[in-house]
Amino acid sequence: MRTYFDCIPCFVRQTLDAVRFVTDDEAVQAEVLRKVLRAASEMDMRMAPPAMGQKIHRLIRQCTGQDDPYREVKDRFNRFAMALYPDLMLRVARSSDPLATAVRLAIAGNVIDFGVSSTLTEADVRGVIERAMSDPLRGSVDELRDAAAEARDILFLADNAGEIVFDRVLIETLPTEKITVVVKGRPVINDATIEDARAAGLTDRVAVMDNGSDAPGTLLGECAETFRRRFHEADMVIAKGQGNYETLSDAERSVFFILMAKCPVIVRDLECEQGALVVRRSSADGKGLG
Amino acid sequence: MRTYFDCIPCFVRQTLDAVRFVTDDEAVQAEVLRKVLRAASEMDMRMAPPAMGQKIHRLIRQCTGQDDPYREVKDRFNRFAMALYPDLMLRVARSSDPLATAVRLAIAGNVIDFGVSSTLTEADVRGVIERAMSDPLRGSVDELRDAAAEARDILFLADNAGEIVFDRVLIETLPTEKITVVVKGRPVINDATIEDARAAGLTDRVAVMDNGSDAPGTLLGECAETFRRRFHEADMVIAKGQGNYETLSDAERSVFFILMAKCPVIVRDLECEQGALVVRRSSADGKGLG
Repeated sequence: MRTYFDCIPCFVRQTLDAVRFVTDDEAVQAEVLRKVLRAASEMDMRMAPPAMGQKIHRLIRQCTGQDDPYREVKDRFNRFAMALYPDLMLRVARSSDPLATAVRLAIAGNVIDFGVSSTLTEADVRGVIERAMSDPLRGSVDELRDAAAEARDILFLADNAGEIVFDRVLIETLPTEKITVVVKGRPVINDATIEDARAAGLTDRVAVMDNGSDAPGTLLGECAETFRRRFHEADMVIAKGQGNYETLSDAERSVFFILMAKCPVIVRDLECEQGALVVRRSSADGKGLG
Repeated sequence: MRTYFDCIPCFVRQTLDAVRFVTDDEAVQAEVLRKVLRAASEMDMRMAPPAMGQKIHRLIRQCTGQDDPYREVKDRFNRFAMALYPDLMLRVARSSDPLATAVRLAIAGNVIDFGVSSTLTEADVRGVIERAMSDPLRGSVDELRDAAAEARDILFLADNAGEIVFDRVLIETLPTEKITVVVKGRPVINDATIEDARAAGLTDRVAVMDNGSDAPGTLLGECAETFRRRFHEADMVIAKGQGNYETLSDAERSVFFILMAKCPVIVRDLECEQGALVVRRSSADGKGLG
């Protein structure tokens, strides 16, 4: 997905939100804001929005001197989600359609996105879980089920810390043995890295690899060669979250996107309603959703 | 009032809103956006926010080649407000406190602000008039009444087209003969210029002058010398709208501000609620509100 004009004010708002979250130093806040405004004035709008997100968060890390400013919040939401995990598994076990329930829960976990809001609370997440149990699912779980049954190997591109525990519930409801989980190569916002896969208890259940990149999404051109090859060769790719949708919706292979549509530009692109629970497969010809 | 960090994303959003209102040409929209981002990256945050508004709308006029892109909407809201004028005067005449009612109506008219929103409708204005009849007034009408009775000459800094008809209702409820109305020197957004004072039927009732500037507020340093002298020498200055508040709240003379608090930064600065009807006098020492 390209960058739309509407993304530009949102980048600036996100920058302010993020830099305030990371530091109280107004001089640093001003420095980051000015550098982001300059970068935005020169940006290539054909790039997917996470290319700008990557720039913003590199600037924040560089100007604050913090390598992983969201580490504490990532740990907190991992612990919170791990405490919920038994209940989430119970909901799936008791469901008449365990996979549909696991998909709903994985989408609920997608609300743990500090790129969208820095003020998310645990109570917010609990509320979203309940809503996700009853809201309509936009897309077909059966298509996901059939593809997973047929595939020999499945690449699961995780999104955020905390959320990755919800993803574990989905992964354990799918044919787990076929799955390789992919996390980010370096910290960016609260995106999951290998530490978060470990905290979610995934590293001793499935293969976990990182993509070599610090983009809040999957900018293939920037990812490690090993990951790129796996991405193109896997029988099935499941990608969580908006950042992966924005960067892979036009990829030259079919991808199953599982996300909550939080941003108005994505809502328009997906032709769904704000907050919609989405499970959608893109076509294999690089032309987006079929 | 200085520019706050929160003003920056809002400038970018306003730019997008305004340039889309003025042209459908995406190349021009992109050009303006990029230039505003660049200007914002270099801006002096000690300046009042309308200094950036002035830059944005100069860029829009320059890149679109339109000298007065809001002329049509200014004419439309002047006609609409003139059609309401007899009813507005009747409300004042029938009121137990005509001045308070005229102040409320002048504040209601302040919603006609295309710097804040380009999608305002006549129905919106009608709704705001009704709300303004009953919402609490933040500030003292008696202070305004007493100052107007004592003053020999009163400068009334108008804000927007359409709104200026609501201002006429207030001007006719005050000691009209003492009043000089000030409009902008050149077009900017939908701010009132001399044409709008004429359309509102003001030019043959009171003295009208322009301030020589195209800032959406009153940047004294940029205004004509004649206006500046009048501003400092007048016994009483009444200033309508957010732009005048932002640029004159720290002026070295007392000013009566009459406005609807539409922007969250101003709401915080005035310690009032969003949408509040405000009539407040600043102190004469350049230290803002007393």
